Amino acid sequence: MKIKDITQKLFRDNIMALFRSNNSHKLHPAEVAEVFKNLPVDSIIGAFNSFSYDNQMQIFPYLDPIIQKRLVLSMPPVNASALLNAISLDDRVAFYSTLKDTERGELLELLTPDNKKATFDILGYPKQSVARLINNQFATLKKEMSIAEANEYLRRHQPDTETANVIYVVDEQGKLIEDIPVRRLVLNEPTKKIEDIMDKFCVKLNINDSKEDAIQKFKEYDRVVLPVTNEDDILMGVVTIDDVLDADEQRNTREMQKFGGMESLDYPYVKTPFFSLVKKRAGWLIILFLSEMLTATAMGYFDKEISKAVVLALFVPLIISSGGNCGSQAATLIIRAMAVKELSIRDWWYVMRREISSGITLGIILGAIGFLRITTWQQLHWYDYGPHWILLASTIFFSLIGIVMWGTLSGSMIPMVLKSFKLDPAASSAPFVATLVDVTGLIIYFTIAAIILKGTYL
Amino acid sequence: MKIKDITQKLFRDNIMALFRSNNSHKLHPAEVAEVFKNLPVDSIIGAFNSFSYDNQMQIFPYLDPIIQKRLVLSMPPVNASALLNAISLDDRVAFYSTLKDTERGELLELLTPDNKKATFDILGYPKQSVARLINNQFATLKKEMSIAEANEYLRRHQPDTETANVIYVVDEQGKLIEDIPVRRLVLNEPTKKIEDIMDKFCVKLNINDSKEDAIQKFKEYDRVVLPVTNEDDILMGVVTIDDVLDADEQRNTREMQKFGGMESLDYPYVKTPFFSLVKKRAGWLIILFLSEMLTATAMGYFDKEISKAVVLALFVPLIISSGGNCGSQAATLIIRAMAVKELSIRDWWYVMRREISSGITLGIILGAIGFLRITTWQQLHWYDYGPHWILLASTIFFSLIGIVMWGTLSGSMIPMVLKSFKLDPAASSAPFVATLVDVTGLIIYFTIAAIILKGTYL
Repeated sequence: MKIKDITQKLFRDNIMALFRSNNSHKLHPAEVAEVFKNLPVDSIIGAFNSFSYDNQMQIFPYLDPIIQKRLVLSMPPVNASALLNAISLDDRVAFYSTLKDTERGELLELLTPDNKKATFDILGYPKQSVARLINNQFATLKKEMSIAEANEYLRRHQPDTETANVIYVVDEQGKLIEDIPVRRLVLNEPTKKIEDIMDKFCVKLNINDSKEDAIQKFKEYDRVVLPVTNEDDILMGVVTIDDVLDADEQRNTREMQKFGGMESLDYPYVKTPFFSLVKKRAGWLIILFLSEMLTATAMGYFDKEISKAVVLALFVPLIISSGGNCGSQAATLIIRAMAVKELSIRDWWYVMRREISSGITLGIILGAIGFLRITTWQQLHWYDYGPHWILLASTIFFSLIGIVMWGTLSGSMIPMVLKSFKLDPAASSAPFVATLVDVTGLIIYFTIAAIILKGTYL
Repeated sequence: MKIKDITQKLFRDNIMALFRSNNSHKLHPAEVAEVFKNLPVDSIIGAFNSFSYDNQMQIFPYLDPIIQKRLVLSMPPVNASALLNAISLDDRVAFYSTLKDTERGELLELLTPDNKKATFDILGYPKQSVARLINNQFATLKKEMSIAEANEYLRRHQPDTETANVIYVVDEQGKLIEDIPVRRLVLNEPTKKIEDIMDKFCVKLNINDSKEDAIQKFKEYDRVVLPVTNEDDILMGVVTIDDVLDADEQRNTREMQKFGGMESLDYPYVKTPFFSLVKKRAGWLIILFLSEMLTATAMGYFDKEISKAVVLALFVPLIISSGGNCGSQAATLIIRAMAVKELSIRDWWYVMRREISSGITLGIILGAIGFLRITTWQQLHWYDYGPHWILLASTIFFSLIGIVMWGTLSGSMIPMVLKSFKLDPAASSAPFVATLVDVTGLIIYFTIAAIILKGTYL
C-alpha cells in the first residue's frame, strides 16, 4: 500500500487545498476517502468537518460505514440532515442499513418526509435484494418527444449525475417501455422522435430480484446500468454496476470464507473486533471437531489391529489427508462451477461419472507413489516394515485408490446434495466432506488391511 | 437452468425469426448465444450460418472460444474475413488469443492490414495485461470545439456503439487531456466550449497495467469505462467494465481453484477435457502426497510410544485435522484480505499478534471439548482408556492448544511469507500449511504425550 506512505506527506501539504484546487492534479473524492482510511478517527472527523458541504457530500459515500456513523453523530443535526438528504438513495440506504434499530429510528428523523419514506421502504426489502442498491434519481422521457425536445427537457430538469447516462422511456402510468443510452440523443438527428431511436431490447431487473440475479444479468448482457421495475412494470429506480461490483466482491469474499470453514465476516478482517472474529471461527471449528471425533471412535474399533501391527498407524495421517485433499479439490471445483452457473444439480449424473473416473485415475497415481515409497524405504533400509512389507505396500496401494475415489466422489456430490436441499453448498460442504472422507477413509484402510494382511501381521 | 427447458421449444419456433423480428419480444444477442450453448456443435454451425451477416457479427462475441473457432473454420474465407474484421478489437484479440500459434498465423491473414497490425500488436502484451481488453474504437474531440460543433462532428463520424458513452478530449499529438461522459453534451448549453465542461478528474490506465490493477481502479473510482494510454500519454484505446468483470470472475475462479489445492483450469469445468482435468489436479495432489509422506516418517520416530500406548494413535486423525482446519481458516482469511488489498505484507506483525491470540483462544475451546470427550466416554464406560485416562485427557487438552495455535499461526504467516517472495499465496499456501501443520502437529502431540505420560503409559 503506497497510499500509506504518502498519507503523512499529503496531509502536511494540506489535502483540502488539493481537493478543492483547480489545477490538473485535483484529488478524486475516492482518493480523499482512501487517505482518510489511514488516519485516526478523530483526525478524520476534524478533516471532514473542515470541508465545504459540497465536498463532504462527494466524499461521504466512499467512506466506511463505521466512519460514516461517527461523522454523522459528531455533526450538528442540521448539517447531518443536509448531508443525509443530499446523498443518493442507494448510498443513504447503505448508511442506514448498518445502524442498529434504535439509532436508525432516530437518524431517520433527520430526513425530509419524501426521503424518509423512500429510505424506509427500501430498508423493508431483504439485505440481499437488489432493492437495497436502487437509486431513485433517473431521467424519463415520453416516446412521442423529438430528440431536440428531449435534449431541451433534460438540460432543464436533469442534474449531471452518473444516472443520466441512460434515459428511460415510460408511458403515462410510469410503466417502463425502454432504456436509451444518452449517446443516442447526440448521435441521431435532432428531428427524429424518441420512438425512432428505440432498439426494442430492454433488459430490466425486478425489485424482488437478489443481488446475485443482478450480477448475472449485468454480466450476461454487458450492461453498466439496469432499470428496476415492480410487479406492475412501473419503473422504481436504477442500479449501477459499481454497486453490483461491490456486492460481487463481498459475495466472493463470503464464499471463500465459508469455503475455508468459517462463518463469513460482516466486516473486513482488519475491521472485525477480536471476539467477533473468534466467534465466527469457533462455530465451525467446534462442529468440525465434534464430527471428527468420529475418527477416534472409528480407530477405536481397530485398536486390536493397531496393537498387532503398529506399522499400520504410521500411514493413517498420509491416507486420510490424501482423501481430504481430493475431496476439497472436487468440492472447490463443483461449488465454484455452481456459483457461476456452469453446473446445476440436474447435472449430477454427468458430474458423478466424471468424478468417479477422475478419482480412480488419481487414486492409481497416488497409490503407485505410496507403493514405491514403502518399497524404497525397505530396500534402502531406511525403515523396517517387517518381512511382509510387500503386503503392506499393497494395502497402501489399494487403500489409496479406494479413499481417493471416495474423497473425490463425496467432494463433488455433497455440494450438489446440499444445494438440492436449498442449503448453501459453500457454507456447509466442508464439515460433511471432511468427516465423511476421514471416517470412511479409516474404515476403508483398516478393512483392506484386514483382508490383505490376514494371517501375516493380523 | 430454465434456458435448457425452453431451448427445444425456442428452436422449433424459429429463433432466427425471433431475433430478427420487430415486435417487443426481440431476443438479445446474448440470449441467442445462451440458446446456442445447449445445442450440439453441428446445429450451432448450421444455425449461425443461416443468420444475416449483421446478426452474426452481434452474436459472435458472446460465443465460447471453442465454438468461435469451429464457426470460423467452417465458413468460406471471405465470410470469415468479413466477420473477423467487423468485430471490435477486444473481441478479436480474445478470439485470436485462444488459438495455437500456427492457426493464429493463418487466420491473421484474413484481417485487413490495419486490423492485422493492431491485433498482432496487442497479442504481444502479456495475457494478464489490460492491453488484451483494449478497444480501439473511441470518439475524440478537441477542447476548443463548442458543444454544438462536437455534437455535429460526432453525429457524422461516430458509430452508435457502447464506446461512445464517454468521449475523449485529446491534444494535437493525440495525448489524452480528459474524458467526458457523453451526457454532458446533452445536459449543457450547446454554445459552451468543451473545455468549459471538463471537470479536471481524469482516471486512466497504462497499457502495461495488469487486469488486476484495472479491476481495482474501476472499483475504486466507480467507473464503467477507462481510457488506456502509453508511456507518452497517447490515448491507445478504452477498456469497458464488462470485459473487466469477466476477467474478475475468472480471477476469482482461479483463486478459489488454486486455494482448493489444484492448478487453475483454463476453461470452465464442463468444457475441460478429462485428461486435462486430471493433469491439473494430479500435480498438486502429488506434491501434497509427497510432502505428507513426512507424516509417516514423523510417526515412525514414535513407533515405540505407539506400541506401548496404542490409545495414543486413536486421536491422531482428530488432532491433526483440528490443526489443519484452523490453518485453512487462517490462510483463507489472510489470502482473501491480501487479494482485496485490505492487508499487505507490512502488516505481518499485526496479523501475527492477532492470530496468536485467536489460536490460543480457539485451542482452549477445542482442548476443553477434547478433555470432556475422554472423560465422558471413560465415565460412561463407552471406551476404556486405562487407569491413567485423566493424564491422557490432559495430553489431548495441551496438545490441542499447541496444535491449534501453531496451525493458526502457520496458516496466517505462510501466505505472507510466500507473497514476500513474490509467489502467489493462493496457489502455494495449501501444501506448505498442510505439511507444516500435520508434521509439526504430530511432533507436538507425541512430545507432550512423552512428558505427561512418562512413567505411566510410556
